[in-house]
Amino acid sequence: MRISELSRTSGVPIATIKYYLREGLLQAGQATGATRSEYGEPHLRRLRLIRALVDVGGLPLAKVREVLACVDDPPASLHCALGTAHDALGAAPPDARGADLAEAVVAGAGWRVDRASPAFAQLGAALAALVDAGFPAGPAALERYVRAAVDLATAEVADVPRTDTAAAVQFVVLGTILYEPVLLALRRLAQQHASATTLG
Amino acid sequence: MRISELSRTSGVPIATIKYYLREGLLQAGQATGATRSEYGEPHLRRLRLIRALVDVGGLPLAKVREVLACVDDPPASLHCALGTAHDALGAAPPDARGADLAEAVVAGAGWRVDRASPAFAQLGAALAALVDAGFPAGPAALERYVRAAVDLATAEVADVPRTDTAAAVQFVVLGTILYEPVLLALRRLAQQHASATTLG
Repeated sequence: MRISELSRTSGVPIATIKYYLREGLLQAGQATGATRSEYGEPHLRRLRLIRALVDVGGLPLAKVREVLACVDDPPASLHCALGTAHDALGAAPPDARGADLAEAVVAGAGWRVDRASPAFAQLGAALAALVDAGFPAGPAALERYVRAAVDLATAEVADVPRTDTAAAVQFVVLGTILYEPVLLALRRLAQQHASATTLG
Repeated sequence: MRISELSRTSGVPIATIKYYLREGLLQAGQATGATRSEYGEPHLRRLRLIRALVDVGGLPLAKVREVLACVDDPPASLHCALGTAHDALGAAPPDARGADLAEAVVAGAGWRVDRASPAFAQLGAALAALVDAGFPAGPAALERYVRAAVDLATAEVADVPRTDTAAAVQFVVLGTILYEPVLLALRRLAQQHASATTLG
């Protein structure tokens, strides 16, 4: 298809597609003339992936680039691929008060995690915000969230395909990012349902 | 305390505090001179709350204003308060393909939810992104996420204080927003732990 049709089908403006092409996020089409290229299904899939990471995942373009680089050129270790996904999801600046709160929860859960990782700083910032708003943020108060996180993460990691490295990296990196908005939207709808039933 | 100390203690620059004062997000201090005001613990708490909603909750200032208005002047119904919190969390534009995907999951879960709500559109967009990236997005594939959402939401709604309306609204609005980053950070850390244990 021509770029105009790629734009129509994907819903992404031509100027944006050209920008992604210039930036190397989207692979070039097959040249069919001096100013004309032909695009196919892989371009459409790639374009949808970029938009999903931006619109649904909320990633800035620089992080989209890192995520795509990891998917295109898979690292040897899946644990590294997970690190790339987590790094892309952003982090709060480290904060001593948050670190103490996060440490208590992580130690209580018995988790083996990197205290220098963005996710650890993110947990600290989120817990400090809870405390500031008058909510409890200790291991006991968070027990149900820890349990939900363990249940989901254990099943997710068990689901990683073990035979094909490229597929596994794609699964880990994109799954980590794209299931976050799903989980949040489901929690909000489940709250609506529980609220309509008991508080309505 | 003076505005300089309020700034030091909260970590919020004086110019930002003055902006919040002008915008009415932060209540005025007690005037102690022509150009001097005295601020107290309530100002500090309010300032921390605004920063938590912006930095941790990721809310734009216009949404922070709506959330604070709801907390300051609680609506009669807690179900409305929940709606305010969900509206503040943003939404994807409605999309027919996403709506069908969301409908299948919501119907499968047997939830009573508002199909015009931002959370429903958000679920649709998130599921469409999953499909585009090659992940399954049907009710069976999402069962574990639905179960986690139901467990959390049921416990959260059961925890809402029933005696004091203002406290209940504060609990519903802020809890809805501030536990989201906690849940995401915990999932990422639980993934790290599961990954270190089995993929490391």
